[in-house]
Amino acid sequence: MSNQEKMVKEITAMEEDFAKWYTDIVKKAQLMDYSSVRGCMVLEPHGFAIWENIQKILDKKFKDLGHQNVALPLLIPESLLQKEREHIEGFAPEVAWVTHAGNEKLQERLCIRPTSEVLFCEYFSRKVHSWRDLPKLYNQWCNIVRWEKTTRPFLRTVEFHWQEGHTIHETKEEAKNETMTMLGIYADFCKNELCMPIISGRKTDKEKFAGAEETYTIEAMMHDGKTLQSATSHYFGDGFSKAFDITYQDRNNKPSHPYETSFGMSTRIIGGIIMTHGDNNGLVLPPDVAPIQIIIIPISMNKAGVLEKAKEIYEVLKEKYKVALDTSDQTPGWKFAEYEMKGVPIRLEIGPNDIKKSECVLVRRDNREKSFVPFANLNDEIDQTFIKLKKALYEKALSQRNNLMREAKTKDDFNKICSEKHGFIKSMWCGEKKCEEILKEELAVSSRCISLTDDKISDKCAVCGKEAKHLVYWGKAY
Amino acid sequence: MSNQEKMVKEITAMEEDFAKWYTDIVKKAQLMDYSSVRGCMVLEPHGFAIWENIQKILDKKFKDLGHQNVALPLLIPESLLQKEREHIEGFAPEVAWVTHAGNEKLQERLCIRPTSEVLFCEYFSRKVHSWRDLPKLYNQWCNIVRWEKTTRPFLRTVEFHWQEGHTIHETKEEAKNETMTMLGIYADFCKNELCMPIISGRKTDKEKFAGAEETYTIEAMMHDGKTLQSATSHYFGDGFSKAFDITYQDRNNKPSHPYETSFGMSTRIIGGIIMTHGDNNGLVLPPDVAPIQIIIIPISMNKAGVLEKAKEIYEVLKEKYKVALDTSDQTPGWKFAEYEMKGVPIRLEIGPNDIKKSECVLVRRDNREKSFVPFANLNDEIDQTFIKLKKALYEKALSQRNNLMREAKTKDDFNKICSEKHGFIKSMWCGEKKCEEILKEELAVSSRCISLTDDKISDKCAVCGKEAKHLVYWGKAY
Repeated sequence: MSNQEKMVKEITAMEEDFAKWYTDIVKKAQLMDYSSVRGCMVLEPHGFAIWENIQKILDKKFKDLGHQNVALPLLIPESLLQKEREHIEGFAPEVAWVTHAGNEKLQERLCIRPTSEVLFCEYFSRKVHSWRDLPKLYNQWCNIVRWEKTTRPFLRTVEFHWQEGHTIHETKEEAKNETMTMLGIYADFCKNELCMPIISGRKTDKEKFAGAEETYTIEAMMHDGKTLQSATSHYFGDGFSKAFDITYQDRNNKPSHPYETSFGMSTRIIGGIIMTHGDNNGLVLPPDVAPIQIIIIPISMNKAGVLEKAKEIYEVLKEKYKVALDTSDQTPGWKFAEYEMKGVPIRLEIGPNDIKKSECVLVRRDNREKSFVPFANLNDEIDQTFIKLKKALYEKALSQRNNLMREAKTKDDFNKICSEKHGFIKSMWCGEKKCEEILKEELAVSSRCISLTDDKISDKCAVCGKEAKHLVYWGKAY
Repeated sequence: MSNQEKMVKEITAMEEDFAKWYTDIVKKAQLMDYSSVRGCMVLEPHGFAIWENIQKILDKKFKDLGHQNVALPLLIPESLLQKEREHIEGFAPEVAWVTHAGNEKLQERLCIRPTSEVLFCEYFSRKVHSWRDLPKLYNQWCNIVRWEKTTRPFLRTVEFHWQEGHTIHETKEEAKNETMTMLGIYADFCKNELCMPIISGRKTDKEKFAGAEETYTIEAMMHDGKTLQSATSHYFGDGFSKAFDITYQDRNNKPSHPYETSFGMSTRIIGGIIMTHGDNNGLVLPPDVAPIQIIIIPISMNKAGVLEKAKEIYEVLKEKYKVALDTSDQTPGWKFAEYEMKGVPIRLEIGPNDIKKSECVLVRRDNREKSFVPFANLNDEIDQTFIKLKKALYEKALSQRNNLMREAKTKDDFNKICSEKHGFIKSMWCGEKKCEEILKEELAVSSRCISLTDDKISDKCAVCGKEAKHLVYWGKAY
């Protein structure tokens, strides 16, 4: 890091203008930049490095469960996309069409993948012939294009990056287990590595993925009371395998259709990290995904021994941590602000007085707590600080989420809650789409998910008063 | 690995039909499969895992030199692509055009990136203002689309995967150094990790990248005497930065145009691995990029203790190596053939007799050499075997390459050589495009690269007889 960075300017306070606070962080922490195509973004080094860390962690989890990575094509022929009716209806309005190559018009239009179910189905139909070929547990890390009308960095972009897992199984049970296992992987990742509390649940028919029998989701709460769908896991039954004529000889030597799933998490989750942990000084990153975990800032750099000691500490720490040393000619104050903006979890300050005492100053990004740490204890203290910091991030987010968790037993309760910050609204639901539509139209809230537990807060649907079937979490979604 | 794999069938011998031998390996080692879009392939698990290993190794080399990863958009507006004249002329005939999104016609056509120079230029123009902002050393791993007329797995596909590095510098010298440094990175990678001998050189004006001042290349020799351009590194001068109006305040406070480079290696290199090391039993993989480095095959699996011992060895080895254990009900002979086909460098056979002697059988993929290794020495022996195997792969390839290295002092020499296997043809060249065109038209050989040394084999151009300027390597290229 050299003095090439511009002076850090104050960002808009989130209480003043939340949307502006958000884009200020995206720009000033240099996570993402715009391009000349509306909604197609540049993932800048600091933003992409967060995504790389997310990839590394998730990829290992997937592989430990036996998933293999593949790369399927970017382009889908129109006729292939049309094979599953619900699926094409869901995606057709938002796909980009390739119609020409060089100077020639193509015989058939090709769309850029908005998701890859149909490509995996085509591939499976060529590869799956016997029960011995099952299961196949595949995943790909790739780019996706959906022509969204309104876009916002990370949260909704025309091109985005994600992983999409696609699996195919002999039995319903196995496929359903896979769906729930992968939901659990996402939930654990959010909790343990991203320090984000989430609510797991099932989507209503209205909100589920086009072509899925069941869609499961993890939903997170943002600072502003809006919810973020953070990952989804789908059970397809044999709908796709019938539509694509994937047939295999089962153990009784009879032709049979296998069962499929898919699941995905995207760069959108980086928007979730910003709006879960960020503050008015900028980004706050959980250590597991921080591109720089520790920034070392020498104080009075020209004094004898300071730079040497800082370099010595850097060399030791880099064996174990993602650490950077800023020896640029910017002032320490500038540097403090810069790395706070970038969300670096731990700052170490090393000055002449510290060196005399064989210690340095350790500052936590989340609460700015300062401590003096003897050089000899540095490794231990950093490990402990990461544990404490992660716990604090999670608990702070959980307490904020819980403060925004309200119950609605009647439509009036909904009205009242929605006139304030939305948050999560727990409420009983009859199961009718009509009641969902009323809440959507009148209050702009949607069903986020159906609870996976049997808990209930009353016996009646809060909207129509009829018998309730499910406890649902509602909210205003990103 | 279960018994789901089909019986390995013999592949076409390379002496019989080289092209068929190649596609047989691609299919039977399950590296790549076709999709319903011509030239757009599926990278299957075994093929993609090789690419992942290549990515990991190169990515570390790039990052160690200070490069940062980014992700730039997939789509380029037509007007942006047109800003650099030579560049658009080079790529326009082979780009895929997006003209519609959903049901709407776009105001401006967008092409799918055939390479990303113009996108990086646009990004740099927003980000580079002062000499303090330089250099920027960026790289991205991404997919690329070029509408090639004839396609072949890995070697030439409509969609392919690559990394493209893009850097921008204050001075010519710095940019030229970067160009040569990255060429060296590719050359070392081919030699040390892929065990592929290559020739480094500079492209002639006719063969250089559209828009580059200088293009450098590494060229490898395939079994059939054709050459494979394996990676390129370009020096752009300030041509792009002028075309895109990238201006910065230099150290004297004057507006100045920076100097750029780009460099790339793609999935095509996997085709190079196949055609450098493969044999009539299938793929032969260098251990550094092999998805499975060691396959353990239990013999007489039902005999007491065999499976237990095989599992025990597996558990020990997996701490250090990419190892797999095949406990499927296929015969040992089937398994031997299967993992030879897949190119696994080392096979360990563990049977009841071996266990009695506390040893196992180690078989090298490259030369099928067998040795008996006491369990206690296994780690050491594997390490030694990898070293020996890599050396043997490189030396065998080098000796094959040297056998295919011929000199042409006259046009007659060219005629004679080209009537046999092409190989590399070393020859002096006057520097005129005309002579290149004659060789291309009459003998289908192109200049692969201009030697970087001062060596010469005569004073006259082999084609026109005029004074020679350069020693050039010619060949028939993939």
